[in-house]
Amino acid sequence: MSTKLIAHPRTDDPRSQADATDVILTGDRPTGSLHLGHYAGSLRSRLALQGRCEQTLLIADLQALTDSAGRAAHVAQHVPEVALDYLAVGIDPAQTTIAVQSRLPALACLAILYLDLVTVARLERNPTVKAEVELRGFERDIPAGFLCYPVSQAADITGFRATLVPVGDDQLPMIEQTNEIVRRVNRLGGPPVLTECRALLSSTPRLPGVDGRKASKSLGNAIPLSATNEEIHRLVMAMYTDPGHVRPSDPGRVEGNVVFAYLDAFDQDLAAVAELKERYRSGGLGDVPLKRRLVGVLEALVSPIRARRAELARDRGYVMDVLRAGSERANVTTEAALRDVRGAFALDA
Amino acid sequence: MSTKLIAHPRTDDPRSQADATDVILTGDRPTGSLHLGHYAGSLRSRLALQGRCEQTLLIADLQALTDSAGRAAHVAQHVPEVALDYLAVGIDPAQTTIAVQSRLPALACLAILYLDLVTVARLERNPTVKAEVELRGFERDIPAGFLCYPVSQAADITGFRATLVPVGDDQLPMIEQTNEIVRRVNRLGGPPVLTECRALLSSTPRLPGVDGRKASKSLGNAIPLSATNEEIHRLVMAMYTDPGHVRPSDPGRVEGNVVFAYLDAFDQDLAAVAELKERYRSGGLGDVPLKRRLVGVLEALVSPIRARRAELARDRGYVMDVLRAGSERANVTTEAALRDVRGAFALDA
Repeated sequence: MSTKLIAHPRTDDPRSQADATDVILTGDRPTGSLHLGHYAGSLRSRLALQGRCEQTLLIADLQALTDSAGRAAHVAQHVPEVALDYLAVGIDPAQTTIAVQSRLPALACLAILYLDLVTVARLERNPTVKAEVELRGFERDIPAGFLCYPVSQAADITGFRATLVPVGDDQLPMIEQTNEIVRRVNRLGGPPVLTECRALLSSTPRLPGVDGRKASKSLGNAIPLSATNEEIHRLVMAMYTDPGHVRPSDPGRVEGNVVFAYLDAFDQDLAAVAELKERYRSGGLGDVPLKRRLVGVLEALVSPIRARRAELARDRGYVMDVLRAGSERANVTTEAALRDVRGAFALDA
Repeated sequence: MSTKLIAHPRTDDPRSQADATDVILTGDRPTGSLHLGHYAGSLRSRLALQGRCEQTLLIADLQALTDSAGRAAHVAQHVPEVALDYLAVGIDPAQTTIAVQSRLPALACLAILYLDLVTVARLERNPTVKAEVELRGFERDIPAGFLCYPVSQAADITGFRATLVPVGDDQLPMIEQTNEIVRRVNRLGGPPVLTECRALLSSTPRLPGVDGRKASKSLGNAIPLSATNEEIHRLVMAMYTDPGHVRPSDPGRVEGNVVFAYLDAFDQDLAAVAELKERYRSGGLGDVPLKRRLVGVLEALVSPIRARRAELARDRGYVMDVLRAGSERANVTTEAALRDVRGAFALDA
């Protein structure tokens, strides 16, 4: 695979936070196809880091099952879809390991051991878990696997000996939880076997859905990575702008305006975007020319991704081979980490 | 190994509850050496069933770590000790699989999947967990692994496709929890892959410690399976009888009298024990002749066990081979069960 799609590391260059010795673990829950929000928020950063650090993308199917056990077939079906998305944007399996979480038994073994080092009260206090429990309306019916997923994440991170984990602000408690477990393992008695990780924080704001709400496949408000030009056109034309901006001559708001959020994320010509914002604010720029510009920018971004995705999708065997080879490589890494952690628990190797 | 020690299936014959097609899973937490309470309560029943059903003894080191992560070295050290106890009483590894829980990654993988099928509230309501949390004084500082251990037990039981699980009354909620998980797995979509298990209930009362309290290694009130004749003599002479039975001529109480509890458990001559009870109740039988009789009974029981244990302990390699071969066999069984359960979760095989 060529890597010509490595592109757009804008104001927030992740390379300033990583060095060549870093080991990066990141990934996605396979609950839907990836969209432009993923591209702006994480895929672009992974492309920028590819080849600079050891990097693994974990397709977290077990994590997806923690709140979706009833939708297991849906999750399973999206494992190769997410892999296709990775490959289509330019993730190169020779440089970045793509692995499937459920194919790595060492991660389950690590999680089971780590559960003994964390109290139920500590998990219930985890702010990320609390927020997500609320979001999902679980109340008392939280699946135990969901409550325990920070422990499973700690298993993932330490299983790969990751030193740098890309997260949003809201995920910082997960990093803290992982490092607490690392310290507890290292205090079990023998020599320290794990090292703490750091968060790779992105300052890129989360890209909204076309209606201004959180982008989500189920809401139909996200632009898929494989969108056709017609879809792009339709979704951009439906974008939420400024309801007070009725006539082109009216002054308009840039903040909260979805079109500008996308231009900020994807338009390479920063000076032109700055000028458009100025004109929009002072009045005299209608939504339609602005949206036309965005359509052009997104078509240029998405067209090669879509073409490559379609080409790859015809060779299902190749995608399966990528997942198999990546998971095999990841098995070697994670089994080695498990051996060390078993040693800390005085379990035979 | 000969099986000449198969012995003493008294009033409560487990063979009446099991048939040849049953698969039995039982075992012990390796937190101490086994004692006569284990012999009366479980080992004897395992010997009676040996060769009649497929039977696995699981040395549950991971379960021991759920409340003893800080004592990992102690747990590890007791894995071969428990195996020695098994072999010394006559467990024959050619007929009964002896496996180590932490060497079976499929069990961890099953447990991680099952955690998604059980709510936190359900685990907190589990009467066995509630009672044990209270016993250990955990309050809010329950290790997550401890709260989740019924799920881990369900993984063990279903991993071996056990149909019959020896438990005390207090453990019945664990069987119910397992069967709930079995039903949830079978309802995930595909064809049913697991079958429910039944409890093998023992009516043998729990053998008390020599002081009348619960027998426990830490209280020093249990008679080890490898006790010397001197230890047996000392512990029996210290046994709690009836504080109101001061002179031999006084009438004495049989209920709550530890000597009679042990005679009931181990004296083969039921008629003689009945007569002694009668004489003790009506007055005229002192504690000392009674204790002398018990010393003789226990020496006859323990001596061959102790001798065999000492002989086996000299050949550590043999014990390790037994554990290795048993765990390998158990790996084949549990990996096959995991494949089926993964299928139910739509995960590739």
